Amino acid sequence: MFNFEISAHCPHTKGRCGCFHTPHGPVQTPRFMPVGTLATVKGISTEQLARTGAQMVLSNTYHLHLQPGEQVVAEAGGLHRFMGWDGPMLTDSGGFQVFSLGNLNKIDERGVVFRNPRDGRTIDMTPEHATNIQMALGADVAMAFDQCPPYPATENDVKDACRRTHAWLERCVNAHTRSDQALFGIVQGGCFPHLRRESARAVAAFDLPGIAIGGVSVGEPTDDMHRIVRDIGPLLPLDRPRYLMGIGTLREMAVAVANGIDLFDCVLPTRLGRHGTALVGGERWNLRNARFRNDHTPLDSSCSCLACTGHSRAYIHHLIRSDELLGLTLLSLHNITHLVRFTNAMAQAIQDGCFSEDFAPWQEDSPAHHTW
Amino acid sequence: MFNFEISAHCPHTKGRCGCFHTPHGPVQTPRFMPVGTLATVKGISTEQLARTGAQMVLSNTYHLHLQPGEQVVAEAGGLHRFMGWDGPMLTDSGGFQVFSLGNLNKIDERGVVFRNPRDGRTIDMTPEHATNIQMALGADVAMAFDQCPPYPATENDVKDACRRTHAWLERCVNAHTRSDQALFGIVQGGCFPHLRRESARAVAAFDLPGIAIGGVSVGEPTDDMHRIVRDIGPLLPLDRPRYLMGIGTLREMAVAVANGIDLFDCVLPTRLGRHGTALVGGERWNLRNARFRNDHTPLDSSCSCLACTGHSRAYIHHLIRSDELLGLTLLSLHNITHLVRFTNAMAQAIQDGCFSEDFAPWQEDSPAHHTW
Repeated sequence: MFNFEISAHCPHTKGRCGCFHTPHGPVQTPRFMPVGTLATVKGISTEQLARTGAQMVLSNTYHLHLQPGEQVVAEAGGLHRFMGWDGPMLTDSGGFQVFSLGNLNKIDERGVVFRNPRDGRTIDMTPEHATNIQMALGADVAMAFDQCPPYPATENDVKDACRRTHAWLERCVNAHTRSDQALFGIVQGGCFPHLRRESARAVAAFDLPGIAIGGVSVGEPTDDMHRIVRDIGPLLPLDRPRYLMGIGTLREMAVAVANGIDLFDCVLPTRLGRHGTALVGGERWNLRNARFRNDHTPLDSSCSCLACTGHSRAYIHHLIRSDELLGLTLLSLHNITHLVRFTNAMAQAIQDGCFSEDFAPWQEDSPAHHTW
Repeated sequence: MFNFEISAHCPHTKGRCGCFHTPHGPVQTPRFMPVGTLATVKGISTEQLARTGAQMVLSNTYHLHLQPGEQVVAEAGGLHRFMGWDGPMLTDSGGFQVFSLGNLNKIDERGVVFRNPRDGRTIDMTPEHATNIQMALGADVAMAFDQCPPYPATENDVKDACRRTHAWLERCVNAHTRSDQALFGIVQGGCFPHLRRESARAVAAFDLPGIAIGGVSVGEPTDDMHRIVRDIGPLLPLDRPRYLMGIGTLREMAVAVANGIDLFDCVLPTRLGRHGTALVGGERWNLRNARFRNDHTPLDSSCSCLACTGHSRAYIHHLIRSDELLGLTLLSLHNITHLVRFTNAMAQAIQDGCFSEDFAPWQEDSPAHHTW
């Protein structure tokens, strides 16, 4: 269980493709994972989700703790049963949300106290509590409870956050007792290279079945994020899956894969879908735009999703113009399919030995968008 | 084409079951038809729609004329292609909407002038125009442009509306030239029995492939509606499908079937679904209610829809509480399936000779809700 088999390496980069085994089936990597915050990928049924090619689906501990509460999910037989998704699942720890969404009251070595934005009540969140909630939810992968510093932050603040993140990781490891669930550690360290390296070494020392890089995509320049991924890679165990949290744009995913990253997640495809935007050929198209009114061609003729095989741009334009729910569903389905396809294509290219040739977006004349 | 075969009669009522043949396949009757106002059944993909057992789907000429306009739909190859539904379709004439939704400016023998609520522009709607729009949309069945009087209305006003409806029907028949599309006439007459009978005779005289009863469910007492259906039945040709417009509650459909009605439509299942309400065992359940919070049983264990086979009441409650789109989709799917199943069960009962026994909601001790 939680074995990670690497089947091919790119000869020119650190890219690799492989398979991460979970109790609910394999996750072929590199792979994009859609986000189902409240045990539902917004607007999409689990049948439709399966057709996007997604394998592992994320859900958010913070949100599920507030509604419906982990006890309801546990009673239902766990998250898979509750939402009707039989494939692999991952829950984040809620750390990111506590620091970005919650009304933070107090933070100390013990944990975090915040106000529930739904009813104003005080919630006490500790590494043990976050781990217990995730064990009750029962995803295949649980994430350690970490402190994600904002951007920008002073070196001292980031240092403090790292120290806590590592101390909390130890407590998460001690609290975590489900053998059918993997616990991943999270590397922090903001944009300070030495803190990132220190954090990578500290987290790697726990010898967990997987490691995530957190605290990215919080407002830092993209180049900083690339540098972090490049710097940390060599410090992480080669035989464990690496998950870059919150990243889901083509260029960033390609750069990360070239640096040995295996897993990605992002709310972008569904959020863009809900705003009438489609990801097509590396661009973002606003389907509300009048230029689609009489365009009876498929959204993306190279895509096999429900939106692209069953409908036209003109129809989706009409749905978006009419505020019809189906428009949001179709665009979200397409966008998720688009990102999953892109990561699949990278896996195939690594297998075929042409990854650095086909997916080199850091080169001026990258042909990436022509070849997948 | 547009042949209507009756396969069985109820020996105790006027109920019959049969099959109405259209260019896009058969419609087994009695049957409930879901409403896809803007070329989409709200929140439901065409794949999901097919699984509800729905055969013929409605769409609204008035709404489609305003957005995206019939030219866009015609360019796409017609309504079926535009929305990706390969089964039978029916468009209403827009008459009902012009009188109930539009900002009516003028009505005379020629037609109706109203203001487009989207942009304030004046729209001239005549029987010829309504027929041309429907020919451009290209559904299997088009409806005649009628004048639907409000409830209550004076006898004189209803008489005028009837006269216009019959004169306009003649003009619709003359304007209608598509041989792959059936034109249905609409009986009006409000709650005045003699006007209803007169209208039924006038419309029946056109010898069209189907006849609808309009102007019901506009606010009149339910008993009046039942009386209208009972009175008109014997005046309509036996060998043509009869469509009772805007009706979709179990009791009303059962009474209507007992009086020889074959087709129904109603926005209720999707509208209720969007408000978090499920149709279960003849009741309306508000899934937001806290009693469903820990109820891990299926919504309706006798139902084979996606919501009932893949999810629990607790999960749907959670989705509705969280304002998740999937909740509305699942409830709409269930509600449509529920009504289609009910009409299917009536067809089966007529076939089996037990319709009057199983579906006699006008009897105090009707076992209808136990047996389907």
